[in-house]
Amino acid sequence: MRYFMRLAYRGAPFHGWQSQPGEVTVQETLEKALSTVLRREMKIVGAGRTDTSVNARMMIAHFDVDSPLEDPQKLVRAINSLVGKDIAVYEIYEVEPDKHARFDATSRTYHYYAMSEKSPFFHQLCWKAPAGLDYDKMNEAAQLLLTTHDFTSFAKLHTDAKTNICKVTHACWHQIPGTDGWVFVITADRFLRNMVRAVVGTLVEVGRGKMSVEEFQAVIDRRDRCAAGTSMPGHALYLWEVTY
Amino acid sequence: MRYFMRLAYRGAPFHGWQSQPGEVTVQETLEKALSTVLRREMKIVGAGRTDTSVNARMMIAHFDVDSPLEDPQKLVRAINSLVGKDIAVYEIYEVEPDKHARFDATSRTYHYYAMSEKSPFFHQLCWKAPAGLDYDKMNEAAQLLLTTHDFTSFAKLHTDAKTNICKVTHACWHQIPGTDGWVFVITADRFLRNMVRAVVGTLVEVGRGKMSVEEFQAVIDRRDRCAAGTSMPGHALYLWEVTY
Repeated sequence: MRYFMRLAYRGAPFHGWQSQPGEVTVQETLEKALSTVLRREMKIVGAGRTDTSVNARMMIAHFDVDSPLEDPQKLVRAINSLVGKDIAVYEIYEVEPDKHARFDATSRTYHYYAMSEKSPFFHQLCWKAPAGLDYDKMNEAAQLLLTTHDFTSFAKLHTDAKTNICKVTHACWHQIPGTDGWVFVITADRFLRNMVRAVVGTLVEVGRGKMSVEEFQAVIDRRDRCAAGTSMPGHALYLWEVTY
Repeated sequence: MRYFMRLAYRGAPFHGWQSQPGEVTVQETLEKALSTVLRREMKIVGAGRTDTSVNARMMIAHFDVDSPLEDPQKLVRAINSLVGKDIAVYEIYEVEPDKHARFDATSRTYHYYAMSEKSPFFHQLCWKAPAGLDYDKMNEAAQLLLTTHDFTSFAKLHTDAKTNICKVTHACWHQIPGTDGWVFVITADRFLRNMVRAVVGTLVEVGRGKMSVEEFQAVIDRRDRCAAGTSMPGHALYLWEVTY
C-alpha cells in the first residue's frame, strides 16, 4: 500500500531535494529516517526536485509499505525526531496504490519573497530587493506568462526534460499587507528546472527599468535561455503548494 | 550635539548588546562602524542591555558629535554597509543635547514568540511551544503582573540594580492571526535583567498546568528568584519598542 507524506523544509542546509552521492539532501535525510523507524530500506518519490537552497513550505512524497501503518501520526513524530530542525513532517496518509506524488500532481505553486528594507530577521528567508522596483510593470510583464506555452527561454540548458511546454495559470506580485515586502506567486501544471528563478530574474530586469514589457515578450519568443535575465538566489524561493 | 539612532538586530550572532572584552557585541560592532565612518573614536549609549541571543526589533542608542552631520541618511547607509546582515540601522536624527537614550525612555515593550507546530523557517526566531498550553490561564496569571510592584522573584541575582520596582502596564498573550503562533507582549517603565524570560518561563508553568494562578501570585509575593520558573531561551525574545 502507498502513503503520501506532507512536509516542509528549509533549503539552505541541503544540497537540494534529490539524493546524490556524497551530498546531504532532503530526500536522503527522509529516507534514512524512514528506514530507521520502519527497519527496512525505504525509498520515497517527491512531487518535484527543488535545487540547492530552495525551500518547500509544502512538499508531497510517496512511499510504499507491505502492511498498513498502525499509527501514521506516531510515524510522523518518530521521523520528526530524527530529521533535525530544518525538515518538518506534518502528515502521513494512505492513498490509492497507483497514486503518484510526481506524475499525478495537477499543479504546483511557488512563492518568491522580496523585501526592500534591510532586516536582521528575514535575510535568510527573503531576497533583499533594491528600492524603487516597479511592481506594476513587473505585473504587466508577468501577465504575458499566462499566454506562453514554450518556456525554453527560462529553462536550464542540458536537462533531461522531454518538453519545455508549461501551462501557467497564475503569475502575479502581491504586496504583503502591513510590510514593505512583496511576494511573486506563480502556479503551473509543471515547472522546468530553474524556471521560477529565471522568470523572477527577468521580471526584476523589467522592474529596474532595464527591460521593457515588449522586450520581455521578445525574450519569451526567442526560446533561448541566454535571452533571459540572471537566475535569482534560491533562499527566497518556496515550493508553496502541490495539488492533485 | 546629540543624535539618536534607531536600529534592529538579531541576537544569535552576538554576545548581547553591551561591549565586553574579547566578545563580539552589538554595541561594539556599531561603535567600530561609526568610528570608521566618522574617523574618530565613537561611543554609543543604548536604551537597554539585551542579553546574549536576545533580539531587538527596535533599539535606540545615542551618540555625540562636535559638528552637525551633513547627511544622516548617508551615515545610515555607510554604517549598514559595515555592520553585516544581522544589524540594520534605520534612522539617525538629532535630539536635544541632554536627551538620554536610556534614562529618558519612558517605556519598553518586549515580545516573546511561541509556535506549537514544527517549522523549518521560524525555529531560529520563535520558541517551540508544547501542544496544549492553556493560554487563557496564562493570561489570567499575566494580569497579576499589572498590580505587582516588586519583581525580585523575576530578577537575576547579584546584579547592580538599585531597586527591583517596575511598573508593568501591559502583559498579555495574543494569538497571531492565521497561524498557530502566540506572542506575549509586555510593556513596563523598566525591566530587570532576565525579567521577561523568567516571567514567561513561570507563565508557561501555569500554561502546562504545573502551577495554579494562585501559586503564581505566591511566587510574586515571595520576592525570591528561586520561587519562579526557569528562564526561557533568548532567541524568541524581542525588544520591540522603546518610547520617550
